[in-house]
Amino acid sequence: MSFLYKADPERGAVWARLFAERAPDIDFRIWPDIGNPSAVRYLAAWEPPENLAETFPNVKVVFSVGAGVDQFDFSRIPPEVPVVRMIESGLVAGMVEYATLAVLAAHRDWLPYAAQQREGVWNPIRVRTAGSRRVGVLGMGVLGQAVLAKLQGFGFQCAGWSRTARELPGIESYAGEEGMDAFLARTDILVCLLPLTNATRGILSRDLFERLPPRSVLVNVGRGGHLVEQDLLDALDSGRLSAAILDVFDTEPLPPGHPFWRHPRIMVTPHIASMTQPETAVEAVLENLRRHREGLPLIGLVDRRQGY
Amino acid sequence: MSFLYKADPERGAVWARLFAERAPDIDFRIWPDIGNPSAVRYLAAWEPPENLAETFPNVKVVFSVGAGVDQFDFSRIPPEVPVVRMIESGLVAGMVEYATLAVLAAHRDWLPYAAQQREGVWNPIRVRTAGSRRVGVLGMGVLGQAVLAKLQGFGFQCAGWSRTARELPGIESYAGEEGMDAFLARTDILVCLLPLTNATRGILSRDLFERLPPRSVLVNVGRGGHLVEQDLLDALDSGRLSAAILDVFDTEPLPPGHPFWRHPRIMVTPHIASMTQPETAVEAVLENLRRHREGLPLIGLVDRRQGY
Repeated sequence: MSFLYKADPERGAVWARLFAERAPDIDFRIWPDIGNPSAVRYLAAWEPPENLAETFPNVKVVFSVGAGVDQFDFSRIPPEVPVVRMIESGLVAGMVEYATLAVLAAHRDWLPYAAQQREGVWNPIRVRTAGSRRVGVLGMGVLGQAVLAKLQGFGFQCAGWSRTARELPGIESYAGEEGMDAFLARTDILVCLLPLTNATRGILSRDLFERLPPRSVLVNVGRGGHLVEQDLLDALDSGRLSAAILDVFDTEPLPPGHPFWRHPRIMVTPHIASMTQPETAVEAVLENLRRHREGLPLIGLVDRRQGY
Repeated sequence: MSFLYKADPERGAVWARLFAERAPDIDFRIWPDIGNPSAVRYLAAWEPPENLAETFPNVKVVFSVGAGVDQFDFSRIPPEVPVVRMIESGLVAGMVEYATLAVLAAHRDWLPYAAQQREGVWNPIRVRTAGSRRVGVLGMGVLGQAVLAKLQGFGFQCAGWSRTARELPGIESYAGEEGMDAFLARTDILVCLLPLTNATRGILSRDLFERLPPRSVLVNVGRGGHLVEQDLLDALDSGRLSAAILDVFDTEPLPPGHPFWRHPRIMVTPHIASMTQPETAVEAVLENLRRHREGLPLIGLVDRRQGY
C-alpha cells in the first residue's frame, strides 16, 4: 500500500521524512519513482498525472497539495474517488499574514509612499483610524474566516461575502448575488479569497469595480482567473481603484513586459501569499487517512459540482 | 482658566470642538490666540513657546501632543511644572498597525519583491513560518508592549529589551547593557521603539548591527536620532542587514538627494507611523486634568532626569 506524492520535490523530501516517522507502514513515494502502480492507494498532487484511472487503478483518495483544486481536471479522476483540498494550519497562517500585510499596506498608504520615495517626495498623508476603514473579504471559507478574524483585531469595519449565508461574530455578512451590491458599496479595501470556479471566473471586472466606492483598493489572493486584467488597468486609470496588490495572475510567471510589472499603483508578488507547509500538511493528510480508514467525513472534501 | 493648544491647527480645531462638548468650563485656545496669558493653566504643545515661564506664569501642567518629549527643552520649563507625554489609544493603535505592517513586510520579503518588480523578475522566495522568525523590540513602554502583544498573535518568537527589567507573558525579556548582547544575537527583525535620550542617541550603530545575526532587518519607528545613518548604509552594503524600514530621520523632511531615498533596500515613510488622534487624545488629556485636580498621579508623567 503506497502513497504517491507528485509536487515540489524539495518539500516532498520533508513529507517523506515525516511519513517515515509517523506512518512507517505506508510506502511513501515521490513522483516519478512510483513503484508498483497498482499499490498506490493515495495520491497527493498539484497536478494529477494524466491517465490517472488507467495507471493507478486502486487510488482511493486524491489530495490537492494546494488550497484550491481549480488546476484539477475532474473529468480525469474517477467520480467515486474523493478529492480533498489542502486545509492545514501552515497554509492558513501564511494567508492570514499576507492578507493582513496587504490590508495594512493599503490602509497605511504604502503604495503611495513607495511612489513618493521613487520621486524623493516627503508628503505625509493624514493617518486614518482602522475604525474608519471598511474591509470586505470575498469568500468566507476557512481562509476568509481566518483573515476576517485577524483583521477584526485591528479594529477595521469587517464584512464578508459568500455564495451562501455565513454567520461570524462581529462580521457583517452578505450572501449571494442579491447581497453583492450592498457588500461592494460599503467596501474600501476588497480582498478576494474565492475559489476559482465557473461561477467566479472573471468576477473582478469593470462591473464589480464600478459598484465599489471611488478610490478603493483591491487585494487579489484568490486566483489570477478571478481578475479581468484590462478592467483593473482601466479602473486604476479612472480612479475607481487607487491601488491593487496582486499575488496571482492569469499567466504565471507574469510575462516579461506585462503592464502590471511597471504600474506605479500595482504591487506584484510571485504567488507566494501562502504555501503548504510540509509539517502541518502531513499532519492534515494523516488525519484524513485515519478518517478515510474509519469511514469518517474527510476534511476539505471537494464538491465536484461546485468546484471547491 | 484657560487651556492653550500649540500644535497642528487642523487637529486643534477638533480638540476645540471636543473641549467645548466635554469641558465647557475650560476656555480652550489655539496658538497664537492666547487670550490672557496669566489665565493659561494648561499647555499642550509639540514645541512649547519660548519664554514659557515668563509669558505664562500660572501654567500648572505641560502636555506633549506626541508620544515623545525629546523635542522639549526642559531647561525652559520651570522644574515644578509636571511634563506629560501623550499616551492615548489612537496613538498606540497607529503604532501597532505600522510596526505590524513593517514586521510582516520584512517577514514576507516585500522589499525584495518590490526590487524584483522594478526589474520584472518573478522569483518566489520560500515562505518561512512566523514561528521560525525572531522579532525583537527595543523599548518596552506602552508602545513596545502593545506591539509585542500583537506580533505574538502571529506566532513570531518575540523578545523585548528595556533599560530596566520588564516581565510580559510569553515574551523573552532582556534588560540593561548586560542583556543587550543576548537580545541582539537572537533577533532577525529589530524594531526600535525607544525614547530618544542621551543614553539612546546613536544606539542604532555599527556596534549594534554587528551583534545581530547576518541579514537582519531594521525597523526604526523611534526617532531619527537613534540611528547613525552612515552605519546603516555600511551594514546594508556588507550584508549584515538585508533591509531597513524607516519612518524617522535625523533631518525631517529627509533632504532631497539623501542616499536613503533611492536605496533599493530601504523603505522610507515620512514620519507617519503614528499620529495623535484628536478624539482619543482629548480623552487622555481630560482624564489627566481630572487627576491633576484631584491630586492623583498623572498618566505619562515624564521623569526629567531619564528624559521620558
